[in-house]
Amino acid sequence: MTKVLICYYSKGGTTEKMAEKIYEGAENSDAEVDVELKKVGEVAIDQLPEYDGLILGSPTYYGLPSGEIKSFLDESIKHHGDLDGMVGGAFSSSANTAGGNETTIMALVEALLIHGMIVKGLPKGDHYGPVVVGDPDEDELKQCEYYGRKMAELTEKVTMEG
Amino acid sequence: MTKVLICYYSKGGTTEKMAEKIYEGAENSDAEVDVELKKVGEVAIDQLPEYDGLILGSPTYYGLPSGEIKSFLDESIKHHGDLDGMVGGAFSSSANTAGGNETTIMALVEALLIHGMIVKGLPKGDHYGPVVVGDPDEDELKQCEYYGRKMAELTEKVTMEG
Amino acid sequence: MTKVLICYYSKGGTTEKMAEKIYEGAENSDAEVDVELKKVGEVAIDQLPEYDGLILGSPTYYGLPSGEIKSFLDESIKHHGDLDGMVGGAFSSSANTAGGNETTIMALVEALLIHGMIVKGLPKGDHYGPVVVGDPDEDELKQCEYYGRKMAELTEKVTMEG
Amino acid sequence: MTKVLICYYSKGGTTEKMAEKIYEGAENSDAEVDVELKKVGEVAIDQLPEYDGLILGSPTYYGLPSGEIKSFLDESIKHHGDLDGMVGGAFSSSANTAGGNETTIMALVEALLIHGMIVKGLPKGDHYGPVVVGDPDEDELKQCEYYGRKMAELTEKVTMEG
Repeated sequence: MTKVLICYYSKGGTTEKMAEKIYEGAENSDAEVDVELKKVGEVAIDQLPEYDGLILGSPTYYGLPSGEIKSFLDESIKHHGDLDGMVGGAFSSSANTAGGNETTIMALVEALLIHGMIVKGLPKGDHYGPVVVGDPDEDELKQCEYYGRKMAELTEKVTMEG
Repeated sequence: MTKVLICYYSKGGTTEKMAEKIYEGAENSDAEVDVELKKVGEVAIDQLPEYDGLILGSPTYYGLPSGEIKSFLDESIKHHGDLDGMVGGAFSSSANTAGGNETTIMALVEALLIHGMIVKGLPKGDHYGPVVVGDPDEDELKQCEYYGRKMAELTEKVTMEG
Repeated sequence: MTKVLICYYSKGGTTEKMAEKIYEGAENSDAEVDVELKKVGEVAIDQLPEYDGLILGSPTYYGLPSGEIKSFLDESIKHHGDLDGMVGGAFSSSANTAGGNETTIMALVEALLIHGMIVKGLPKGDHYGPVVVGDPDEDELKQCEYYGRKMAELTEKVTMEG
Repeated sequence: MTKVLICYYSKGGTTEKMAEKIYEGAENSDAEVDVELKKVGEVAIDQLPEYDGLILGSPTYYGLPSGEIKSFLDESIKHHGDLDGMVGGAFSSSANTAGGNETTIMALVEALLIHGMIVKGLPKGDHYGPVVVGDPDEDELKQCEYYGRKMAELTEKVTMEG
């Protein structure tokens, strides 16, 4: 069974709300995937190779993911090469519109690409991955749901044997 | 006299409005600077070394500045090295919140840094440079004005002989 | 038949050499793909939706792709949405090691993601896409070949109907 | 007296060697600056506002600074606003040429800009900040020295009262 992990760090709760909506979107998608939602501290590095998709979320701290998420990525070097071909995605919450949320997501995308992951953008809305500015509104949460659905479908497609 | 150039490309008019507000902010600042506002096609590459500050603006096209702005930067290689130590800045308009405006500004910042320019962020509001999403609102235009003022002051400070 | 387009701008010839090696790699891969190699001026925007994969190459000009490549991307808005799900990739040549080649590739990656494309990194070597510094050496050209092969295989996999 | 802090994280020792060379360059510059060299764990966040310049160094881990450096930046929010106008800089070591060193430096630059810092690129060599690939060679260490000198001079200039 195709497995997708949504792994996030959240302090104020916004990134968690986003993670939950992405989870819902993935769960309710047509793709037959097993979706898990975990805080970054709950994920054992050695479990990472079990997943076919990894969606990372973080608040925007100085235009980059939080230290906790970065340390998690640093540890993941233990399985460098093992995550090659996995589907990857990223999302972020921030206080301001141009407050660093895009660079946070692109920072995560860079890390995922270095693992050899497959990343996909969206031609509509939040192009690099879902963003919430301030308190999440209806549209932003829908974006998260939509993203979860799309990522689940992509992961199923990519993991399908030809 | 310290000279600052605001150079932009605009199609729909939003980037132009931003440029005008940045111009106003620079003009009304306490810094004694001569500010010029020009469309990218009106700036001769050979004039660039005359300026002490260069603020570039572009709409967000595919997360990057427009081809016109990029071609202008490509041509500026004629004066590579001559702009070392100049003050640089960037601004952008976009259709969506996470629609690539930060990456557009950071792309411009990268180009300015390669010229050896001095770039400054803002601890409040739009950190990398002013952004307008959709039609410009009051707050966004104030950001532009504030940025123009700050950039004029920085340029005066940097060009002052010790 | 799965179709991959390698589209590049080259002035000094290095990016062209890279493009040729990527072409060879894609041609000689196990994937059954039809590979085309074209200069950016030779590609009609209206042909883009015919392809399943697009690999863009550019020299590093001020840390970003050349104005020609950027203008090509700007024009591609005509088919915004039509390239959703296509496989995308990028490569770049530069004069210096830390001369902006990574930011050039990431700029292209950002544009491809905004089109909704699927991008993949490499856990070994040039992580974001192949890079040549100065005159291409054996290792760098092998990287290009390897990348072409990997991209062809990914495109075939992604375009396969489930 | 103008004060510059070089703060770094190093595991294998390369980033430390770079930091030492940057220190030497700053010390031997014509600028009258007091330069300090510290490991990231040795810097108390509350000391940050005492400095006029901050140069951050990190190995390249997944295209970004190490978790230790990122956590340090996260903590620095305690003095958000207080570092406005400070001079900032960044450097990185990496295993491969296109292995993420530029994106590591630009990630640091983004964080420094969000603090309101003043960042300067170099028209020659490593444009965004010094990079060492693999074991440091003579040229790379000279770049570090040159960068330290330039940053010391810039910090003196910027902190000078008009």
